[in-house]
Amino acid sequence: MAASKMRIALIQMAVGETKTTNIKRAVQLIREAAGGGAQLIALPECFNSPYGTKYFPQYAETIPGESTEALGEAAKKFGVFVVGGSVPEKEGDKLYNTCTVWGPQGNMIAKHRKVHMFDINVPGQIMFRESDNLSPGHNFTTVDLPNCKIGIGICYDMRFPEMAHIYSQMGCKLLLYPGAFNMTTGPAHWELLQRGRALDNQVYVAAISPARDPDAEYIAWGHTSVVSPWGEVISTCDEEEAIIYADVDLDYVTKVRQMIPILNQKRNDLYQVTTK
Amino acid sequence: MAASKMRIALIQMAVGETKTTNIKRAVQLIREAAGGGAQLIALPECFNSPYGTKYFPQYAETIPGESTEALGEAAKKFGVFVVGGSVPEKEGDKLYNTCTVWGPQGNMIAKHRKVHMFDINVPGQIMFRESDNLSPGHNFTTVDLPNCKIGIGICYDMRFPEMAHIYSQMGCKLLLYPGAFNMTTGPAHWELLQRGRALDNQVYVAAISPARDPDAEYIAWGHTSVVSPWGEVISTCDEEEAIIYADVDLDYVTKVRQMIPILNQKRNDLYQVTTK
Repeated sequence: MAASKMRIALIQMAVGETKTTNIKRAVQLIREAAGGGAQLIALPECFNSPYGTKYFPQYAETIPGESTEALGEAAKKFGVFVVGGSVPEKEGDKLYNTCTVWGPQGNMIAKHRKVHMFDINVPGQIMFRESDNLSPGHNFTTVDLPNCKIGIGICYDMRFPEMAHIYSQMGCKLLLYPGAFNMTTGPAHWELLQRGRALDNQVYVAAISPARDPDAEYIAWGHTSVVSPWGEVISTCDEEEAIIYADVDLDYVTKVRQMIPILNQKRNDLYQVTTK
Repeated sequence: MAASKMRIALIQMAVGETKTTNIKRAVQLIREAAGGGAQLIALPECFNSPYGTKYFPQYAETIPGESTEALGEAAKKFGVFVVGGSVPEKEGDKLYNTCTVWGPQGNMIAKHRKVHMFDINVPGQIMFRESDNLSPGHNFTTVDLPNCKIGIGICYDMRFPEMAHIYSQMGCKLLLYPGAFNMTTGPAHWELLQRGRALDNQVYVAAISPARDPDAEYIAWGHTSVVSPWGEVISTCDEEEAIIYADVDLDYVTKVRQMIPILNQKRNDLYQVTTK
């Protein structure tokens, strides 16, 4: 593959109640995606545990731990980068919703703790308070892959344009959001947010959901997708378990940025987006 | 109508080459929209002139001038607020792309000069350099209506999320973008940008295009629309001349902001968007 291109695979995995089965399934699907030529493989949010406040304490692990070590081994075995969706992480007496990233040598190269807690209340449809059990992270997380800097957010992080904007300023060309939107916010906002982040920052955006389990307490929307810097969905699926692929093309990022050069046309004399 | 509601009308006007005809048509359509119960009526970008760099010097006026004075008279006659799309404005030896806003007493209550110049180059499809003829404005423009603060941008301004973000911080609940996207960027980005701005800032967004003239040098996409703070298109049309209506509901803005309280969940300890 040309140096300007990188094949990514997103795994819309069916997550069940048995942690060891989830881990085994993740490794199996990483193997399959590597066989499909993917250089970077991403799992969904909470790939080792059902999503829900009652499950977080029960499935939480230290990092490294059983679930994330399996990702490092898989990355090494199949010679790929793995963006490990997320797991409930335990450190001291606190829990976090955490994504680990692993390199082809089996080493952990980044760890992102979800920065924005998912606390919403759509009356009669969906009420969720992640902050009842979890603590937020306090860091932006980027990784320098051989030919592309990537930025990591988890689910609700995607609702905050500032974070994507900062990642773009830092030089990221691909943003990855493991996430589990639900049957209310999924159809309304899942694709719109990805397309908006991609278009506004002229980057690729990948969002990785678990497959839908209609019997789960929290029912995921699915629709794992990749969006181009032009704001176009270039790879997607429905709600079933699936692996989707896309070739991220850095030359295309450059081309879009030349055609509509908004990143150079910012009125930095009038406004700015900054980290603190 | 309840105090929390305001009916707006957007006029997707067919703009021709004769300025006096354009002005007359605008006033006629404002009358019709007022008859439809609208309290705020908006015209498209360049309502008095075809859109194109060669037309700007020829159609440019001082403000107030022939075109904008007619808007003030119409606002007074029909007892409405008028957001006057835009006209090519001449001041000294400079030209601007300028929106005027008029109150029911016939007074000009705001003037917005397009802040971001439309300079793009999509090879083989659309090349345009507004900055060859026009100068940019340097100000944000908000207006306090009796029950709702509004923010004004013109066309390409809509591509810059920072501006909408600042307007939202200033308390705007409705953003209006007179604009003329084209047959390339229109289908790709017109609706996506409106929905993104609306969802990210939890505000109403109205975008007002001229009707499509297939014989024009610059062919407008049309599809004048209103999007709700939930990111949903609540009123739209195709490419023909049309007036569309929507009831902006401030209680609904509050409701959306309570359901998904992203505006209160910003991580101001990690990032910020500021004016300079």
